[in-house]
Amino acid sequence: MKAHTHYLWFTTKQRQEIIDITEQVAEQVQESGVAEGLALVSAMHITASVFVNDHEAGLWADILKWLETTIAPWDPKRYRHNETGEDNAAAHLRSLTIGHEVIVPITGGRLDLGPHEPRLAHPLSAPLTGSVGEGVPCHHQPALILTDPEHRLIVAFSLL
Amino acid sequence: MKAHTHYLWFTTKQRQEIIDITEQVAEQVQESGVAEGLALVSAMHITASVFVNDHEAGLWADILKWLETTIAPWDPKRYRHNETGEDNAAAHLRSLTIGHEVIVPITGGRLDLGPHEPRLAHPLSAPLTGSVGEGVPCHHQPALILTDPEHRLIVAFSLL
Amino acid sequence: MKAHTHYLWFTTKQRQEIIDITEQVAEQVQESGVAEGLALVSAMHITASVFVNDHEAGLWADILKWLETTIAPWDPKRYRHNETGEDNAAAHLRSLTIGHEVIVPITGGRLDLGPHEPRLAHPLSAPLTGSVGEGVPCHHQPALILTDPEHRLIVAFSLL
Repeated sequence: MKAHTHYLWFTTKQRQEIIDITEQVAEQVQESGVAEGLALVSAMHITASVFVNDHEAGLWADILKWLETTIAPWDPKRYRHNETGEDNAAAHLRSLTIGHEVIVPITGGRLDLGPHEPRLAHPLSAPLTGSVGEGVPCHHQPALILTDPEHRLIVAFSLL
Repeated sequence: MKAHTHYLWFTTKQRQEIIDITEQVAEQVQESGVAEGLALVSAMHITASVFVNDHEAGLWADILKWLETTIAPWDPKRYRHNETGEDNAAAHLRSLTIGHEVIVPITGGRLDLGPHEPRLAHPLSAPLTGSVGEGVPCHHQPALILTDPEHRLIVAFSLL
Repeated sequence: MKAHTHYLWFTTKQRQEIIDITEQVAEQVQESGVAEGLALVSAMHITASVFVNDHEAGLWADILKWLETTIAPWDPKRYRHNETGEDNAAAHLRSLTIGHEVIVPITGGRLDLGPHEPRLAHPLSAPLTGSVGEGVPCHHQPALILTDPEHRLIVAFSLL
């Protein structure tokens, strides 16, 4: 069994953004030649998450609004973490809620996401406003690990 | 190493329901013959979750109440996703919170859930009221993947 | 491929506590000799969680405060589960939110947590006050599973 690791990079334009990464992950599954296995997609950053859900514009808007109004309002002054000079404590809490990674079965050489074909998505929060600035794109790499019985292929992405 | 995949189906009677799936999963562990390994149980549906916790009626009532009052009230009109004609945006957010899959160690041929023997459970939300109707049972299949050193057995369940 | 399982035990002094377990887990990765693989760290207890995030005192204070004020207030009387005689229903809900386990890639023989070197942490809730008592230390063991292509090594920790 061998491991195949791959790092994917994404550029964001806003502080909070959701990106559909299913195609890039599916591409790696195909490249790996894995028939039956496990795909680990890890955000590799603690203000980002990976989740499996629908790619529907209204739902994505609901998720971002829910993170702000229900889970953890951005409001930097309410968090002790931001006394360090950062302003993204809320992003850490949002990441804890949605989760740091997903692991998806690979069946018959394809990501086995279920019959309704949901998507792998990656909501990201940009780091320090001071070093990045509003509207400045920043680079991210989430992580994916693929395994299968013949050989274990790891494809890893990591978030910068 | 080989993969063993299995799909389990469950019938629900209500929009929100928790089902204890530990026995079905443990059965597959046994059938797989896995001694030391990993069990991935994936909901394979984005309005359902899989979690590990106690099977206690009061706690299950607390979980369902908490999902409604704290995490994401059902209230269809508050979500943009429901402009598509669906009414289950809240179920997507609840699934994001609890999580899409769990991965459990297999040690000595058994699910290694810890000394207090918690249970694998599967809270489900039925799809469109329009196509299913209140009180109409609908079919679901969650996913489980088992691996072990001699051979990798994948048992997968997927949710419809 | 072989499995390496290890159980780690921790002692807590308070009802809610966060412990950085990265070194213990990294030690097991090294002992396992895994080069490329997967590390599953499982709480193995349903009032505890495992997460990957920063080890920063202000953030840890924010997390504990957020769990109390936003996610699930301790307040035993508000939960039906506590009619059983337990008082920790809130801890079950907090565990559902943060998550029961994490799975981390192992790349080049090391835990691949990303370029900012976040930490694996383990927030714990002590069991029944009646049997443990306020301030009485209690033992916990979280779980870690390591896999790699040459052999699958499982290191498991479980929570008591």
